Amino acid sequence: MHKVLGYAAKHSFSRLGPFELERDEARANEVEIDVLFCGVCHSDIHQVKNEWANTVYPCMPGHEIVGRVRRVGAEVTRFREGDLVGVGCMIDSCGKCEPCLAGEEQYCEGPNSWLATYNGPMVPKLLAPGGENTYGRDNTFGGYSGLIVVREEFVLKIPAGLDPAQAAPLLCAGVTTYSPLRYWKVGPGMHVGVVGLGGLGHLAVKLALALGAQVTVFTTQEEKLEAAVKLGAHAVLEKDKTALGGLKNSLDFMLSTVPEKHDVNPFVACLKRNSTLCVVGAIEPLSPENNMERALHRKSVAGSLIGSIAETQQVLDFCALKNISPDIQLIKIQDINVAYERVESGEAHFRYVIDMSSLKAEAS
Amino acid sequence: MHKVLGYAAKHSFSRLGPFELERDEARANEVEIDVLFCGVCHSDIHQVKNEWANTVYPCMPGHEIVGRVRRVGAEVTRFREGDLVGVGCMIDSCGKCEPCLAGEEQYCEGPNSWLATYNGPMVPKLLAPGGENTYGRDNTFGGYSGLIVVREEFVLKIPAGLDPAQAAPLLCAGVTTYSPLRYWKVGPGMHVGVVGLGGLGHLAVKLALALGAQVTVFTTQEEKLEAAVKLGAHAVLEKDKTALGGLKNSLDFMLSTVPEKHDVNPFVACLKRNSTLCVVGAIEPLSPENNMERALHRKSVAGSLIGSIAETQQVLDFCALKNISPDIQLIKIQDINVAYERVESGEAHFRYVIDMSSLKAEAS
Repeated sequence: MHKVLGYAAKHSFSRLGPFELERDEARANEVEIDVLFCGVCHSDIHQVKNEWANTVYPCMPGHEIVGRVRRVGAEVTRFREGDLVGVGCMIDSCGKCEPCLAGEEQYCEGPNSWLATYNGPMVPKLLAPGGENTYGRDNTFGGYSGLIVVREEFVLKIPAGLDPAQAAPLLCAGVTTYSPLRYWKVGPGMHVGVVGLGGLGHLAVKLALALGAQVTVFTTQEEKLEAAVKLGAHAVLEKDKTALGGLKNSLDFMLSTVPEKHDVNPFVACLKRNSTLCVVGAIEPLSPENNMERALHRKSVAGSLIGSIAETQQVLDFCALKNISPDIQLIKIQDINVAYERVESGEAHFRYVIDMSSLKAEAS
Repeated sequence: MHKVLGYAAKHSFSRLGPFELERDEARANEVEIDVLFCGVCHSDIHQVKNEWANTVYPCMPGHEIVGRVRRVGAEVTRFREGDLVGVGCMIDSCGKCEPCLAGEEQYCEGPNSWLATYNGPMVPKLLAPGGENTYGRDNTFGGYSGLIVVREEFVLKIPAGLDPAQAAPLLCAGVTTYSPLRYWKVGPGMHVGVVGLGGLGHLAVKLALALGAQVTVFTTQEEKLEAAVKLGAHAVLEKDKTALGGLKNSLDFMLSTVPEKHDVNPFVACLKRNSTLCVVGAIEPLSPENNMERALHRKSVAGSLIGSIAETQQVLDFCALKNISPDIQLIKIQDINVAYERVESGEAHFRYVIDMSSLKAEAS
């Protein structure tokens, strides 16, 4: 048993603070990882505040984890002590359903769906058929902690050439945008729209450009226009009706990274016939969608959830190969509550990453 | 100039009544058609009542037209006097835009989009870029009339073996369901859901079955359960939560034929991962869609608009080949207002077709 220090929230109304938990030693197929860096995802905030009404407390977020292997279980073959590794949003899945067998664990249809890195099974006991919890855990504790223990199959290799701190956001923000860009076959000659320029959005821009597409960013914040252009994209203000009118029926694919309820109709209007807007930021009821806008040019609105373990490895390798890295700001764990406020107000440029060495100040 | 008798509404609040109009003689590339039968589409009612806020009065509906060629223009090569022919929702398109060149005139991106069989251009002068009307007509008059004159390219051949009255609904209801079934590649081994069992829905069932799929109908009306089974489908009541729960994540494709605002979330829940619900009945803002439902299994909600001229000919030929015919009730034009009430209350089983020989009673 490891006594592990981390940061957690005890209630939906409380701020994050130091929290000590116990983690089991690595079983035969598991890897013990000393956490070096952990990205701050907008989901962490939704979850801490119980905005999806499913939070289990204490809530210790963190699913963009980069660390170094401390110890491996006896049957682990792909990792050894000292390896630089990553852990993303999932740490287990049923392994038996059709999506799992097809290598799409993020769509696991097992009784409890996949096991999230924090907050436990995606389908908790109460909602599961037969009221079971095949993972035996109602809660899980994420990467805002000094150590995490994860099944080998859900551990990623951080390729040489990626900065460990910059690799962290690729494990959620990266794969969440990479997966739909690949599923909808974004490539050279295509014009892609990215709605929102935050943690997910700025990675969507970098990845779509690296895949050979032309990119236009849609933002509500004037100060982000320049940032988008610096990234190599075009940029328009969402309130600029003339600009949006000029883009009508022209985009081959669009990705909305807005992390809350929003109106997708103006973006659907910009899609080319037979094209898709994929919403990855919001997992809630959106504003009413006008089916006229979709029907007039056979357009689709889709959702997509993170990405598979295979795709997570792919996006890490792709970023190493293409020299892509997220724009991050390193923070101490003690500054996490201020960071949350800045993420919510859209001030982050573009991803906070916690330097977990700051945890030592707590221990001393 | 032909003096032609028909039925039209003069205002959004008025009932349909006899109306005399003038139609130009066929130009070189046009065909004059004596109307024999005309289907009654739910769109006719929306349009007459100005429910889409774009109706031009007087409004003479009818876009499921079967008739006999009276005379052809000098350059017409595909038709001659006496041929049994059909006219669907479109009578012209720009012919120059990418969709038109790709044979998808229903998505015409010309300045006025396509020219509807009744009510004029899809994009009227007021809304067109530059305020133009390339068709020179603000209003058009549909098939609730004795004669119609149409460009050769927009006239369909009614294949031998199709009953002329039964062929009529294929020209809108048929192609509107056939087009998405083909676009989303419905075929053997697939399980298709059809929401709503009216004019469109019952044809969707027949077509999907003929394409080799298994079909489940979703209906709010208990009396339609048996009708669905008679057609060869399974059927569930939408309020039957247990039945819907049993279908969760199982359908390969769904088609919603409900002709008004509705909640698609319960149907999206029934879609299999990576599958699509296509909404063809409603062209208005729908109830808010929960993106969680879409994201959890990468599902899409799409719209689709009627079908191309080529697809309209295909569905006619496919129905002749497969011996498919809509279930129709023949009415006289004098009964059109009562028929509208029954369509709105869901009493029609399943499509009213006007026997246009009844118009003669008006003329005498």
